[in-house]
Amino acid sequence: MSSPAGKTILASKIAKQYTDELISITSKLSKKPRLVGFLANQDPSAKMYAEWTGKTSRSLGFEYELVEVEKENLEEEIYKANANDDINGIIVYFPVYNNRQDQYLQQCVSIEKDVEGLNFTYISNMYHNIRFLDDDLKQKKSILPCTPLAIVKILEYLGVYNNLLSYGNKLYGKTVTIVNRSEIVGRPLAALLANDGATVYSVDINDIQKFERGDGLHLKHHRVIDNIKESLQDVAAKSDVIITGVPSPLYKFPTEFIKDGAICINFASEKNFNEDDVKQRASLYVPMIGKVTIAMLLRNLLRLMANNNKLEENIII
Amino acid sequence: MSSPAGKTILASKIAKQYTDELISITSKLSKKPRLVGFLANQDPSAKMYAEWTGKTSRSLGFEYELVEVEKENLEEEIYKANANDDINGIIVYFPVYNNRQDQYLQQCVSIEKDVEGLNFTYISNMYHNIRFLDDDLKQKKSILPCTPLAIVKILEYLGVYNNLLSYGNKLYGKTVTIVNRSEIVGRPLAALLANDGATVYSVDINDIQKFERGDGLHLKHHRVIDNIKESLQDVAAKSDVIITGVPSPLYKFPTEFIKDGAICINFASEKNFNEDDVKQRASLYVPMIGKVTIAMLLRNLLRLMANNNKLEENIII
Repeated sequence: MSSPAGKTILASKIAKQYTDELISITSKLSKKPRLVGFLANQDPSAKMYAEWTGKTSRSLGFEYELVEVEKENLEEEIYKANANDDINGIIVYFPVYNNRQDQYLQQCVSIEKDVEGLNFTYISNMYHNIRFLDDDLKQKKSILPCTPLAIVKILEYLGVYNNLLSYGNKLYGKTVTIVNRSEIVGRPLAALLANDGATVYSVDINDIQKFERGDGLHLKHHRVIDNIKESLQDVAAKSDVIITGVPSPLYKFPTEFIKDGAICINFASEKNFNEDDVKQRASLYVPMIGKVTIAMLLRNLLRLMANNNKLEENIII
Repeated sequence: MSSPAGKTILASKIAKQYTDELISITSKLSKKPRLVGFLANQDPSAKMYAEWTGKTSRSLGFEYELVEVEKENLEEEIYKANANDDINGIIVYFPVYNNRQDQYLQQCVSIEKDVEGLNFTYISNMYHNIRFLDDDLKQKKSILPCTPLAIVKILEYLGVYNNLLSYGNKLYGKTVTIVNRSEIVGRPLAALLANDGATVYSVDINDIQKFERGDGLHLKHHRVIDNIKESLQDVAAKSDVIITGVPSPLYKFPTEFIKDGAICINFASEKNFNEDDVKQRASLYVPMIGKVTIAMLLRNLLRLMANNNKLEENIII
């Protein structure tokens, strides 16, 4: 095998401009913003991840408190945190029950403290390309879900967004395949990229859907086309970008499906690309994205504080 | 087998007081309330059910329109119906995608038109025993999810609620087993009955939880105890009421577990009790509840109209 032409780009490098910005802002604040994380499962890897978010948050000038609770007390603890003026942001580590009750619990987080951007109003605004909570005054930015937002920022860094094109059209001509259609990442991400002009193939275990910018009279947002007859191999062959998020150590995206020179990004904790040969095909490969995601989560926290008039007036985020 | 002592009680009989009330109210209105149902799946039994709700609604003085849409257009159609002043209530027939996207779609229905009572705010209010949307003026009633509400009304009819006890305590001393812990029926029902003083065993395929009235400082509502060591047989043996909702024709609640004289209610479309012998044990048996549920759905519709000042002022619901 010849030495591959492709390059690995680490999330830490992409995150740097955002972490620098966060440090610059938090250093100017009279009081550290305070994030609380709720952990209600016994999974040691979830605890490790929670502790990592804590460490990262503290290194960027935030206060972080990890609260371990019993599942059956989680809802009451979230409501207490909602009502506590000293807490600026809340993150809940899922899965808790690993069923629909988890979605209920996610919605219990106050819209004013939802750093993950998973409140129904935020998600609905994102799907409908509504950028502000107050559509009249445009003072309060609608929060974007942090993992999809991180992937948008990564695509910007990698030059997939073309700044010669106008706002809302910067992905025009680009084709993207996303292997994941969760409500937390895959589906919102497909909509975000389609809203910016891309043709997106959204792949899950059942089917492939095509997302493109819609032409609805009432909702100026992406539209979805079901019943795509093309296979994963067909859509990958057309894709400038392939993004994977399959939560299984057994899954590997077939390297031979990747178009020469494509950009490959993996957001799963497991490595969904075969690291032995992915760079024989991919031009740029981002093996994990966590550091960008947490930067977006903390950025969301500052945005929420701005929305709620909790930031000094001269601070712009 | 001797002739059983138990009696079957039909939902139509229980529903009558509510359907009479609905007819009495709609006959006084200058314009028929209008309900729209969205059907986005190809299942013939879903269509039959939708047509049945239409027929029942019309017979009670409501206008009903069934709109069949493609899945990918459903969200936009819901938003159009939200904005249409001629539509008073919206019902969406699930499953559509049969995954988490369905919960997203459910939340797209405007809180002002959500006759099923499944908006997050309604469900959260129910769990926290909050009865009004405007806690200060107490003019706008918070809507209860219609199937759990129907079961409460059935329990009232059957005399399980004891009117000698004070409000919020009328199930004191009663033990109830509920075989179903869905977010739509089983879990909210367990909370509603616990909030009224019952001890509730909530059974699903994984475990048994115990719900009882809580003593939280902040949330005056039920509390949940996980890790119950008792078996289904143990909890059924103590239960005055057994309520089933298992969506499978294969499931039958074991008749031998039923305490002599218990009340048995099935809310699944499939018959979860063995009709050959359930009345050898049960004192009262309600084989299906659909007619009460639809009465509650239409009652919710009138409540929503009252909340939104769309009912004539002299009408009380």
